[in-house]
Amino acid sequence: MSESIKRVVLAYSGGLDTSVILKWLQVTYGCEVVTFTADLGQGEELEPARAKAELMGIAPNHIFIDDLREEFVRDFVFPMMRANARYEGDYLLGTSIARPLISKRLVEIAHATGADAVAHGATGKGNDQVRFELSCYALDPDIKVIAPWREWDLTSRTALIDFAEKNQIPVPKDKRGESPFSTDANLLHTSSEGKVLEDPWEETPDYVYSRTVNPEDAPDAPEYITIDFEKGDGVALNGQAMSPATLLAALNDLGRKHGIGRLDLVENRFVGMKSRGMYETPGGEIYARAHRGIESITLDRGAAHLKDELMPKYAELIYNGFWFAPEREMLQAAIDHSQEKVSGTVRLKLYKGNAGVVGRKSPFSLYSERHVTFEDDAGAYDQKDAAGFIKLNALRLKLLARRDR
Amino acid sequence: MSESIKRVVLAYSGGLDTSVILKWLQVTYGCEVVTFTADLGQGEELEPARAKAELMGIAPNHIFIDDLREEFVRDFVFPMMRANARYEGDYLLGTSIARPLISKRLVEIAHATGADAVAHGATGKGNDQVRFELSCYALDPDIKVIAPWREWDLTSRTALIDFAEKNQIPVPKDKRGESPFSTDANLLHTSSEGKVLEDPWEETPDYVYSRTVNPEDAPDAPEYITIDFEKGDGVALNGQAMSPATLLAALNDLGRKHGIGRLDLVENRFVGMKSRGMYETPGGEIYARAHRGIESITLDRGAAHLKDELMPKYAELIYNGFWFAPEREMLQAAIDHSQEKVSGTVRLKLYKGNAGVVGRKSPFSLYSERHVTFEDDAGAYDQKDAAGFIKLNALRLKLLARRDR
Amino acid sequence: MSESIKRVVLAYSGGLDTSVILKWLQVTYGCEVVTFTADLGQGEELEPARAKAELMGIAPNHIFIDDLREEFVRDFVFPMMRANARYEGDYLLGTSIARPLISKRLVEIAHATGADAVAHGATGKGNDQVRFELSCYALDPDIKVIAPWREWDLTSRTALIDFAEKNQIPVPKDKRGESPFSTDANLLHTSSEGKVLEDPWEETPDYVYSRTVNPEDAPDAPEYITIDFEKGDGVALNGQAMSPATLLAALNDLGRKHGIGRLDLVENRFVGMKSRGMYETPGGEIYARAHRGIESITLDRGAAHLKDELMPKYAELIYNGFWFAPEREMLQAAIDHSQEKVSGTVRLKLYKGNAGVVGRKSPFSLYSERHVTFEDDAGAYDQKDAAGFIKLNALRLKLLARRDR
Amino acid sequence: MSESIKRVVLAYSGGLDTSVILKWLQVTYGCEVVTFTADLGQGEELEPARAKAELMGIAPNHIFIDDLREEFVRDFVFPMMRANARYEGDYLLGTSIARPLISKRLVEIAHATGADAVAHGATGKGNDQVRFELSCYALDPDIKVIAPWREWDLTSRTALIDFAEKNQIPVPKDKRGESPFSTDANLLHTSSEGKVLEDPWEETPDYVYSRTVNPEDAPDAPEYITIDFEKGDGVALNGQAMSPATLLAALNDLGRKHGIGRLDLVENRFVGMKSRGMYETPGGEIYARAHRGIESITLDRGAAHLKDELMPKYAELIYNGFWFAPEREMLQAAIDHSQEKVSGTVRLKLYKGNAGVVGRKSPFSLYSERHVTFEDDAGAYDQKDAAGFIKLNALRLKLLARRDR
Repeated sequence: MSESIKRVVLAYSGGLDTSVILKWLQVTYGCEVVTFTADLGQGEELEPARAKAELMGIAPNHIFIDDLREEFVRDFVFPMMRANARYEGDYLLGTSIARPLISKRLVEIAHATGADAVAHGATGKGNDQVRFELSCYALDPDIKVIAPWREWDLTSRTALIDFAEKNQIPVPKDKRGESPFSTDANLLHTSSEGKVLEDPWEETPDYVYSRTVNPEDAPDAPEYITIDFEKGDGVALNGQAMSPATLLAALNDLGRKHGIGRLDLVENRFVGMKSRGMYETPGGEIYARAHRGIESITLDRGAAHLKDELMPKYAELIYNGFWFAPEREMLQAAIDHSQEKVSGTVRLKLYKGNAGVVGRKSPFSLYSERHVTFEDDAGAYDQKDAAGFIKLNALRLKLLARRDR
Repeated sequence: MSESIKRVVLAYSGGLDTSVILKWLQVTYGCEVVTFTADLGQGEELEPARAKAELMGIAPNHIFIDDLREEFVRDFVFPMMRANARYEGDYLLGTSIARPLISKRLVEIAHATGADAVAHGATGKGNDQVRFELSCYALDPDIKVIAPWREWDLTSRTALIDFAEKNQIPVPKDKRGESPFSTDANLLHTSSEGKVLEDPWEETPDYVYSRTVNPEDAPDAPEYITIDFEKGDGVALNGQAMSPATLLAALNDLGRKHGIGRLDLVENRFVGMKSRGMYETPGGEIYARAHRGIESITLDRGAAHLKDELMPKYAELIYNGFWFAPEREMLQAAIDHSQEKVSGTVRLKLYKGNAGVVGRKSPFSLYSERHVTFEDDAGAYDQKDAAGFIKLNALRLKLLARRDR
Repeated sequence: MSESIKRVVLAYSGGLDTSVILKWLQVTYGCEVVTFTADLGQGEELEPARAKAELMGIAPNHIFIDDLREEFVRDFVFPMMRANARYEGDYLLGTSIARPLISKRLVEIAHATGADAVAHGATGKGNDQVRFELSCYALDPDIKVIAPWREWDLTSRTALIDFAEKNQIPVPKDKRGESPFSTDANLLHTSSEGKVLEDPWEETPDYVYSRTVNPEDAPDAPEYITIDFEKGDGVALNGQAMSPATLLAALNDLGRKHGIGRLDLVENRFVGMKSRGMYETPGGEIYARAHRGIESITLDRGAAHLKDELMPKYAELIYNGFWFAPEREMLQAAIDHSQEKVSGTVRLKLYKGNAGVVGRKSPFSLYSERHVTFEDDAGAYDQKDAAGFIKLNALRLKLLARRDR
Repeated sequence: MSESIKRVVLAYSGGLDTSVILKWLQVTYGCEVVTFTADLGQGEELEPARAKAELMGIAPNHIFIDDLREEFVRDFVFPMMRANARYEGDYLLGTSIARPLISKRLVEIAHATGADAVAHGATGKGNDQVRFELSCYALDPDIKVIAPWREWDLTSRTALIDFAEKNQIPVPKDKRGESPFSTDANLLHTSSEGKVLEDPWEETPDYVYSRTVNPEDAPDAPEYITIDFEKGDGVALNGQAMSPATLLAALNDLGRKHGIGRLDLVENRFVGMKSRGMYETPGGEIYARAHRGIESITLDRGAAHLKDELMPKYAELIYNGFWFAPEREMLQAAIDHSQEKVSGTVRLKLYKGNAGVVGRKSPFSLYSERHVTFEDDAGAYDQKDAAGFIKLNALRLKLLARRDR
């Protein structure tokens, strides 16, 4: 708090918490605040944020409201999906992957407005502070980052609301009490954590879910869809060409309807503790399975297995906030190199929480019916080759066995 | 075929194909045949195999019928599950993991009966020949392995049936025509491949499934179960202690009922081609998810992430037939070392193809509500530590950014 | 041998063995032979190969003699050096990296001359047959590859010489007896194996070395040199700009003089056995150390460690012959991505077998004296940050320790 | 500094810096100090430390002087050497591997004396603070760790000496000025860094080296030695059985004499900056090469390559201070599993900075002259097997090539 700040760009949702932060920055640092509100597909109206910012004295040209949905999906979600990234085996990284984009815009707006600092509303216990700050520092090593939750003394809900009231910040009725859990949402997912979810033995209450119907309430009839891929990225749903964000939104609708993409997970945070989260990634789950499906016929084994070996590290880097680190970019270069022929069509069956691949075809298919067939293969494969293949693969094991008996 | 063989142990199911092999071995090598029929939980009567072997002139003391179900699950399936092994992201390795055990018994019986060779009924295009032979050579480098499908000229169904009829081998009516697909079954799974499954764009016909009901026909109400783990292995279902094979069998019943564990996959064979398989792993799928669930609260992040990084290689080794290779054993040593405190209870919800973890608890839990809470944590965690943590993690990125701008 | 071959491109050195192969191909396959002799810097005259080929009836337009030295170093050696590749910790892959280039030219010449096959002189026990054939098949899946050493019955030296004499192939006097060891040479290295080297307990006799002086006979005074790098590749020696092959040749002279780059190794062949080889890589050893030196100040830790983790697999792929495989190309894409700023100057001291980096500088250096200094760092680094860094890194270990005590 | 400390165990060398720390702890925390001085083979008299501690008022039963040399080599250096660990390709981790042992004793002594804290003399910029503290927290999550260099204001040499003089701490004449570099020593190595070494372009001055003669001054005649290994650990030199520490000390003498094990390195610290260090690891370098030599004939390829793939991560864990982390223990379990038959004898030639393996033999050798020979192998290896081996390894590459042309 001792640093002198002239102007700070705040990641501003328009909600109570970031409004308090806005005021706190003005009060504490005596600095100008620039607000940045991003549409990442979280499904909220953004214009109210403008009105609120204006009310708090922000100059109109210092209020930034950006629709980042296409950039989000095209430059962040899709590249990550090319890697089949899942953190700790399951989590599709919906929150993690949004942070670098928000950070990128924070820094861009700082440069555009001559600000010397950025601020975010992430707490001191979570991963998001790390993701925001590593990204910002990687993009501008001289930027100052203010993390009010780590600095201020508004550590209880009451203190926060007191501060709001003292500073004429409207407090919506439903924000007076403690929220029963905390959420983050964007086009890829909604995450929920905290409070009612803190006991990992207790099942997640139904009211926590907001993006998917309960599979038990989903349609009794399955629905079949196709997704077309070009060079590793989705380009069409049921034969209809769509932009990245449009495609993901359409898959979200399908996933919501069929109760797909719910995940109840205890995960390991980068800051060293375990946390329990509930994720809903309806479209992302369908997309991820479809991507593996198209890879299964278009990727060579060597490429596929290398990708599988690299994936845990790649996912960990994104989870930990190292999107803008050289090693993530190196892995991306390897992954992208593999996607040149990952084109074709995948057919999936959606049914009550399930999204299963049931068919895949491609002009670049490496699947050779002629080789694999139980029928006469017209000489495509000489079974006698297998004898030599096995003999030489066995040689070292035989030498070992001779030694060790 | 030029080698002189005195006595050969044949992996013998009692079916038409291995009966033809039995006779073919007698005719071609002029050798004694010892039959070995294993109960791996494939769900077939084994005693008929004895009668058939006797009919073909096998001496009673050369007919081996073993119940290997407990050994299979305890010493092969469970160790593999400790690794969370899935080949190419999905396949639970149900066929791959049975081959080393069958090979081990083939070699043991060869030693017990003074046989100098073993024989198996795997074709020259598949992975199983590799798995059988690598395992046998690793256990006895001097054993001879006969793979009739790579040697003989019975390359069409007609030729096979002709041979059977010429040699008084009864041919069941339903075996006269081509089977519409080929299967392998054991306590862990049933796999199906070939024929009607050869076009990867065509959905698997419903009649291919034998181990699970169609999720659409599964009960409309979810069922909750608990699985208890001790040191990484399942020990009880719904609080009732069970042996490994009993537990897996009980989970199979649950999985069957709820349509869990179906997988339609195009995979990369070790011999270099892609194949399309349909797998049903009802109990295994439930078990695998439960194991990850108990690990999520009992494994440290460092251990968990290392396991995730090692898993693809471990799964590939098993898929490729290297169970008895030193590198698989080294990985197993690492994995087993991590399981000491992987004990506790997982609660799952089974519903129409879904098996989701909804709760987990353990006396060895590393999940600390005190640390993660949004509430006052009584000093368990100092949020200001995060600032230094981020600063030093960012240092190299800042140095990079300064250089590269 | 049963296949009908019309025209075959033979990798032809002009020596006795490949001359016998040339004739054997003519006799056995009744086909036309195209000879291909490559200058890879092995240090032998190539024109005699032309005369010999003409003598054996090869049409002048079917005799190819190519100087591939620059392509070899630029497109094969340098990319590999960017990876710091060493097989089994030590071997700089001098033979392995030449095979894909020879294969590439074999296939190109086959296409240019309408040949349907290629042939090489590698034996059936070694790695080179694998490297040649995998490369050829990857470049032309329909090419036929003839490996005479696996086919013919000239399995003894006597039989080979008999065949030569019967077919009017001149046999040099020194080739009548057995050679005491076998060698392969190119601009990167000379390897020796076999015969006198077959007992891994026996020290390599001095007469085996041909590319380096014995360190004991090297100059008593050290010599200092500098190598300049641009984007990961060497571009100048002692400030003098040089092409890739010229630079490597100049380093070879220096390495020879100072007895640098001798390696006595027992290695694991891809075909399953161990072999003992003696390698001399004088310039390559110097270059490899210099490359690590320039990386040490220009590569970020994340990039450097990722490279170190990927290297063993990358080296194994090259050793095993998978240069033209997608996974090698993916790894190359990752590695090359890291080399953008690997530019600067390395200073080395050469002395009696040692080539040590003693200085490195770069306009893109990430080394920050300001940060690392024991002196006052003017606020570049706040030591108190370390406390938080350590606390959060320790958190999971503390939680573990609390559980496990 | 705000915490109340009753009794603290200080890692105490007896030198000026830790004497100042001792006094500073007494003054600042008003607590009792327990001193712990370890003989790790650093080559200094330890008894003077006792006298100094007594002079500063430490009770005799609170002065601990332990000879840890055998434990150091047996339980830390040798296990690490089994892994062939080198950080960033070169560094043998001589400082890193000593820190966990010192930490272990600090915590043990804290428990024995009822101390609630430990203190170390590592600065806030280096890796050692991390290594000490992670180890201590892993062994006792409730221990407090005091790092005076991060807390106090004695940030200049003058301030430190002033404090010493004010507090009657004798200041040796040669400590009045700035030391031209900083060192750490133990039985495995001596490291030097800082001051005259801070410019990575400047060659290390000769006076920095203390453990090895300049290779130019080493004997003109090579010396041959043998090292015997049992289960991965060295047990004898030139046929004479020795304890771990005795063996390493004897190798140090040999390495010193022949100028072996000097390393000039720019490395990446865990805290995010690069530093330049000069290491002398005379015996360790010889030992490390010998260990690889015995592995080369006794380890199977699968085990050897897995070890090479795991090594960079293992070395990074030790460098970063995670010796007592589960993932290091898991890797150790895998590595140790591989060493069961790593027994035999290695012969090395030591000459002016070089330590090359020239011979290796073992009763457990996997090297098979019969297989590898160029001579008649009596049927040990059928060269025709190679054809099938290559064909099936090529199959996927052919399928790719057909698709992509």
